[in-house]
Amino acid sequence: MYETHPIFHGNQGWSELNSLISIYTGAGIFILVDENTSKYCLPLLKANCPLTNEATIIQTESGESNKTLNELGKVWQQLSDGKATRNSLLICLGGGVISDLGGFAAAAFKRGIDFINIPTSLLSMVDASLGGKTGINLGSLKNQIGVFVKPKGVFIFPEFLHTLPKREKFSGFAEMLKHAMIDSEAHFESLFFITEPEKFCVEDAIMKSAAVKMRIVGQDPSEGGIRKVLNFGHTIGHAIETFSQKNDAEPLLHGEAIAIGLICESYISMVLCGLSQQAVKELADLVRLLFPHYRFSGSKVKELLMYMGHDKKNIRADELNFSLLNKIGDPVWDKIPGERLIRESLHFYLNLPKGTY
Amino acid sequence: MYETHPIFHGNQGWSELNSLISIYTGAGIFILVDENTSKYCLPLLKANCPLTNEATIIQTESGESNKTLNELGKVWQQLSDGKATRNSLLICLGGGVISDLGGFAAAAFKRGIDFINIPTSLLSMVDASLGGKTGINLGSLKNQIGVFVKPKGVFIFPEFLHTLPKREKFSGFAEMLKHAMIDSEAHFESLFFITEPEKFCVEDAIMKSAAVKMRIVGQDPSEGGIRKVLNFGHTIGHAIETFSQKNDAEPLLHGEAIAIGLICESYISMVLCGLSQQAVKELADLVRLLFPHYRFSGSKVKELLMYMGHDKKNIRADELNFSLLNKIGDPVWDKIPGERLIRESLHFYLNLPKGTY
Repeated sequence: MYETHPIFHGNQGWSELNSLISIYTGAGIFILVDENTSKYCLPLLKANCPLTNEATIIQTESGESNKTLNELGKVWQQLSDGKATRNSLLICLGGGVISDLGGFAAAAFKRGIDFINIPTSLLSMVDASLGGKTGINLGSLKNQIGVFVKPKGVFIFPEFLHTLPKREKFSGFAEMLKHAMIDSEAHFESLFFITEPEKFCVEDAIMKSAAVKMRIVGQDPSEGGIRKVLNFGHTIGHAIETFSQKNDAEPLLHGEAIAIGLICESYISMVLCGLSQQAVKELADLVRLLFPHYRFSGSKVKELLMYMGHDKKNIRADELNFSLLNKIGDPVWDKIPGERLIRESLHFYLNLPKGTY
Repeated sequence: MYETHPIFHGNQGWSELNSLISIYTGAGIFILVDENTSKYCLPLLKANCPLTNEATIIQTESGESNKTLNELGKVWQQLSDGKATRNSLLICLGGGVISDLGGFAAAAFKRGIDFINIPTSLLSMVDASLGGKTGINLGSLKNQIGVFVKPKGVFIFPEFLHTLPKREKFSGFAEMLKHAMIDSEAHFESLFFITEPEKFCVEDAIMKSAAVKMRIVGQDPSEGGIRKVLNFGHTIGHAIETFSQKNDAEPLLHGEAIAIGLICESYISMVLCGLSQQAVKELADLVRLLFPHYRFSGSKVKELLMYMGHDKKNIRADELNFSLLNKIGDPVWDKIPGERLIRESLHFYLNLPKGTY
């Protein structure tokens, strides 16, 4: 078993954070924020962690569209201008964009400085900040550039979620759904009843979801095998996210696209691996209840398939590789459904009745 | 002892290269070249290695000034456009710029694809292509961004040197000098007599020099300690190289700057660590015989010190950290000579009589 990075939370989390940061005070502490976490999260961090008052702030712009080489270059330049050394610390305070961008920035600055993640979005607390994947997008292709690198620690404080917009909370809930479906029938069913943000934005639910990811990452940190199951919903979900960013004035959030991907890939799982029709229905009902019903023309399926062709899991670009479910709690990977079934799954989603039932 | 990457050379090298490349034929082979290696080296590679005829060529521009984030982005884009997958291979065919840029490009493309180095400059054969350091410059600051990553193999074929300009050969010789001084009195003295390119651009001399680097890298791959001795001559040498790039129409080559750094840091070694005056004189005589005598005004020393402040070895930016020699064959690291002695060493170099003796 691979040694994963530590995760801290609750009151003990704050004291661990203070003691970890104190190691770096002589060598320079940097905090990467965006305009939102600068305003809503930095004050809370400073209040609970006085050593961060002297840190150098590096501010980037929020949003997936800023996870670019250009923004990465600016972070590196600011680390350099701030005279960061090999012994400095970068604190990534924000959602997945911040930990993806900041983790990669730290991993390659002077060939590697230490960093920690303090996720401030639900999506990041249960997923993006965990497990050592970092990276940026290449044009419209997500996470094409990056490295596997372990943060010194991830610190989960649900109090940061108080100022998070409701839509962002549901975006994170999509990844909780994914973890539950990979994990067990009981975990999946438990989410049927906590569909209000006040119920799932709490430490117990978050840590339970995070534990699913950490258990799998611990078995396969560099995604040679079983870690691929965490991509369930993401082959199609990422393509829909890319598509939406290209075509919509107000694009889908990551989790909103993943929720659609979960439905499509559950449908594929049903046809190819025997996932029960009931499970597909339960998921689809839940997603329709909680997420907007996204529309795209059936003629756009070709464009979606093209985006899937760039998925990192593909061994050959012409063979689309999926992670699927035999049943809830029994994931499999390296499955090749073929183009026809992928198309069918997208039409299954498009033909779902709109709205709540 | 850390397992370093393999090095192949000679006729067996060609057959090993063919057999290694054959593993990747289904998944895409890419060759990174510059305009020179495309013209002078690619034909020789293709003739000896027919499988490379189908490879996708990625061409960048030669020269340290192109080891930039911008060029890196272009390499990533071309890998993506060429549908490189996680199982593809990148062959870095060129000097240090190609292996630094290409190695980093490979290490972070889809979070890491395999790469090999085929160095085509002497400097790269004895130094840059070996040991797993990769990276790019940040503005005028050298190698500020990069990672440690092992190539699948380094292939040394001195026949690539036939088309290399003489000045480039001497640039590589400076690193051979450094390795010899770190290694032993006998190795250092052996170089006094093979100062013509035909004598040192041969397999025996190259492999002897490369072995010094690999022995040290094997003890400390990520430069926590003893690997720093390989930076002998480079704290001042890098600053002079940066200075020259900023100020000269035709800047010094890397090795030409390092040769000056070796003299200055030998002088510091003499004052601080007891390196013999004789060794300093032998080195200075040899460098004056083989390298141009570079001039800069004493008033520029402050600018040089500023560049040294960004050296990656520094634990604190205000304490300049050097690797030095107690005697030939006995290197030390983490030495702090202080600003006065650094200035003195630069003036020692400037005051050396010009030309051969």
